[in-house]
Amino acid sequence: MLILDTGIREELKIVEKDLAEYLRAEGNASQVGDILRDVSLSGGKRLRPQLLLLAAQFGPFYKEKKERLCSLAALIEMVHAASLIHDDIVDDSPMRRGRPSIQSKYGKDRAVYAGDLVLSRIVKELFKGGFYQVGGLFGQAVEEMCIGELGQMQCLFDAETTVEQYIKNIDGKTAALCRLACAAGALESGAAQETAAQLILFGECFGRMFQIRDDLLDFVSDASSEGKLVRTDFREGILTLPVLYAVKTEAGGKPIRALLEKALRGQFSDADSEELVRLVRESGGIQDAKRELGRYAASANEALQGLPPCRARDILAGLVARMIQE
Amino acid sequence: MLILDTGIREELKIVEKDLAEYLRAEGNASQVGDILRDVSLSGGKRLRPQLLLLAAQFGPFYKEKKERLCSLAALIEMVHAASLIHDDIVDDSPMRRGRPSIQSKYGKDRAVYAGDLVLSRIVKELFKGGFYQVGGLFGQAVEEMCIGELGQMQCLFDAETTVEQYIKNIDGKTAALCRLACAAGALESGAAQETAAQLILFGECFGRMFQIRDDLLDFVSDASSEGKLVRTDFREGILTLPVLYAVKTEAGGKPIRALLEKALRGQFSDADSEELVRLVRESGGIQDAKRELGRYAASANEALQGLPPCRARDILAGLVARMIQE
Repeated sequence: MLILDTGIREELKIVEKDLAEYLRAEGNASQVGDILRDVSLSGGKRLRPQLLLLAAQFGPFYKEKKERLCSLAALIEMVHAASLIHDDIVDDSPMRRGRPSIQSKYGKDRAVYAGDLVLSRIVKELFKGGFYQVGGLFGQAVEEMCIGELGQMQCLFDAETTVEQYIKNIDGKTAALCRLACAAGALESGAAQETAAQLILFGECFGRMFQIRDDLLDFVSDASSEGKLVRTDFREGILTLPVLYAVKTEAGGKPIRALLEKALRGQFSDADSEELVRLVRESGGIQDAKRELGRYAASANEALQGLPPCRARDILAGLVARMIQE
Repeated sequence: MLILDTGIREELKIVEKDLAEYLRAEGNASQVGDILRDVSLSGGKRLRPQLLLLAAQFGPFYKEKKERLCSLAALIEMVHAASLIHDDIVDDSPMRRGRPSIQSKYGKDRAVYAGDLVLSRIVKELFKGGFYQVGGLFGQAVEEMCIGELGQMQCLFDAETTVEQYIKNIDGKTAALCRLACAAGALESGAAQETAAQLILFGECFGRMFQIRDDLLDFVSDASSEGKLVRTDFREGILTLPVLYAVKTEAGGKPIRALLEKALRGQFSDADSEELVRLVRESGGIQDAKRELGRYAASANEALQGLPPCRARDILAGLVARMIQE
């Protein structure tokens, strides 16, 4: 899913070249070189670079600044890569995108520095490229991501977590980088202030949708989806949106709390997993989460309506449509 | 040790104010606020800010740029703080500067994001303050620190590590930030190119001395020094310079390798620790490390000789003298 025909194939090739360049391992015959190579080969859908380049098309300087925009697109993908390296430490993830995670291949200790290394390369390139207008936004987004992750940790195993707190957490965890993509693209290509504001709003809504859709996938697919083990989140104490709605109902409240207790004690079985799915479904958690997803889709589309009609706008609208597809 | 009378007391007060501002926790009633408060209260000798401000005195714009220089000095201390947070994860350090480390207080997972959070604040402030000339050097220094730490990990429990590799590792681990302090101070205050080059050379030599002196302290003091447990490095497989020299001697080679084997198996006792000290002393490891320290002191002083005589130069020379004091 989300393999886009965004009409920016040529640009994405430049992004790949830039990524390889920024993650170059020259002169590092040692393990540092191996780590950088693994990061640069780790693939991914390049969603954030695509968002950035699409947003940039609303500015007057897209064509003459194409090279610079591709550089920024590569750098935003590196922010994502660095965050995944550190997230995998915290989540003990053995795999990432079908390959061993950095933490499982090199150990958690090395993964700490590997993530820092990627972050340091981003900072270097932001200054080297003279990205003075948007560089600070990169720092801002990383800060929000950290706050989101820390916020989520504070909510672990806590059935009292509010939907508001959940949204706050995913705003950092997921939406911050989508917002950054839209902001950096729009500002670097010289988009008007009002246009940039609409694009940033779009990025935020889209980011929230992206996370909620991911949450939902865990409940509508029975096997593992996108390499992620089903219901891993719950096992680790993360209450995703469908669960959060379900646990607030009279029918779901007590039994889901009991399952959460089991998860906390590390006794959450496969049968429990099935039971959880049944409870969340029956208490309307999935419907409620879908409704929330729909609300953000409406907001995202509203933001798009504030933008001049063009191919990029159609593609962004298509992205929104895909996120609410069954 | 290293409490300096560097004549910049007023500036250091501004640095403390800036630090508090950059690590402000406003609007973060949650754990994020607690973490930031702990980081900002964690103290330290502010050696790197002092180096930066002293180096800056060799430029013509010290006075008119004092505020900006103090900001940079605060930011370099934050790089140090962020690196300590991540180092403590790797080293399982329970304490840091007489207080519980972030990792022991909040757990390793949160400490990963806490370090990232501090790094993100630095990036934000570098762009916000318009530190375009030196911002990239911050990224460069963090990269070098990561490479140094990863290099050191690769050398763990390896008696074949060369002195050259050791120097490469400490260049990243410790010297990179001292070099950055000198470079950032000199460049921001408009020092001439040749002056900046001498200061950077000084910073590198001083950084190496700082680490070697720290290595030596572990063998000349019997009790814990500066809150650090004696011979912890060896227990963890880190071969510091005195050990590295000793293990290359005929007398020390075999028995030290045997002790390293014990450390690897987690069986390194207090008696072994005493034995290690004896072996390193008797095989001349301490003398050799002191000789190396002396060589860097000579280089550091040579770099200072290339600078115009002034109070700042005297203070830097005094710093070097302290590093080779018994």
